[in-house]
Amino acid sequence: MEFSSKLLESAVNEMAQLPGIGKRTALRLVLHLLKQPESQTELLSESLTAMRSNINFCSNCHNISDTSLCEICSNANRDQSIVCVVEDIRDVMAIENTSSYKGHYHVLGGKISPMDGIGPSELTIPSLVRKVEDGIIDELIFALSSTMEGDTTNFYIFKQIEKFDIKTTTIARGISVGDELEYADEVTLGRSIVNRIPFESSLKN
Amino acid sequence: MEFSSKLLESAVNEMAQLPGIGKRTALRLVLHLLKQPESQTELLSESLTAMRSNINFCSNCHNISDTSLCEICSNANRDQSIVCVVEDIRDVMAIENTSSYKGHYHVLGGKISPMDGIGPSELTIPSLVRKVEDGIIDELIFALSSTMEGDTTNFYIFKQIEKFDIKTTTIARGISVGDELEYADEVTLGRSIVNRIPFESSLKN
Ligand SMILES: [Zn+2]
Ligand SMILES: [Zn+2]
Repeated sequence: MEFSSKLLESAVNEMAQLPGIGKRTALRLVLHLLKQPESQTELLSESLTAMRSNINFCSNCHNISDTSLCEICSNANRDQSIVCVVEDIRDVMAIENTSSYKGHYHVLGGKISPMDGIGPSELTIPSLVRKVEDGIIDELIFALSSTMEGDTTNFYIFKQIEKFDIKTTTIARGISVGDELEYADEVTLGRSIVNRIPFESSLKN
Repeated sequence: MEFSSKLLESAVNEMAQLPGIGKRTALRLVLHLLKQPESQTELLSESLTAMRSNINFCSNCHNISDTSLCEICSNANRDQSIVCVVEDIRDVMAIENTSSYKGHYHVLGGKISPMDGIGPSELTIPSLVRKVEDGIIDELIFALSSTMEGDTTNFYIFKQIEKFDIKTTTIARGISVGDELEYADEVTLGRSIVNRIPFESSLKN
């Protein structure tokens, strides 16, 4: 791509560093900014810089938070003895959105992936193990995606903590509510049959 | 979408102002920046701000340019008597990429669209008409997209300049080189038959 301006070229190139944004899309976005008031570009730049340099992670659960302890961890009505282990803050947002969980979280920041050079110490696994050692946790709920990396991560954490007397569970996998059986993938369908629940308890949801 | 941090929320909201970027995509992009070195966010912000506040448009053709006259307009080997009228700088880039055009351009900055409140004076039409009046132009090539707005814009410009003795042409529409006839849309196929060219001249391309 040949640019008629260095200013334009470097804006497009930086924008195209973002995942899933190719050069053409970057050019479209940048030309859009040129048609908008200058204040829009300023607000975008300032909010990104402010976020990147001042971002804080909760000292307890590693969720993104503007305070040293996040709202969930500092809420006395939430049960700190139950901890749901998730990959990133989008999972916290998704689960919070269901309003069906009243425990704490532990945000790992990723999954163990030797291929990408991500080992346990690149994640917040050591601080999770420390919380288990401290004896505050009764139950750990594994809520990572069910990929090979997710399973590896679950198993690694499980081996680190199995000598402690805590319950470990994993979120139920099954057919999405409202989905037709015939369109479900077979692994999910298989698990949902193996892990069937008493009919009475399904009436409660 | 409920955010655990105002810094995160405002970065996502500003990112989601960009066309085609929803809140979920914006969150994914912003979380990506958090995992990258701080310098990447700084470079992105600085390049966008520098572009937006220092961008310059060529005083002759309105193409984006770091100099007051762009490289094309200041190139003595290019023919200023032929001017190709395009909607935006992406069209200039696309045509330049073919290396088959040696004239000048005139970038309108959009198309006439009463629905969006875009009239001739929101575009660079007055400066194009002035160039025609000055008598430097022998041929105007209309290269706008063939939509209703494109046709309206072409016709508006044509009416403004028809009293002057210049040639007006429009780029050839036809079946893309390498495309199968059966997959072409019927309007394009129809035009390509009506506007057929002598076989000998097709051998030159
Ligand atoms: Zn927390
Ligand atoms: Zn120019």
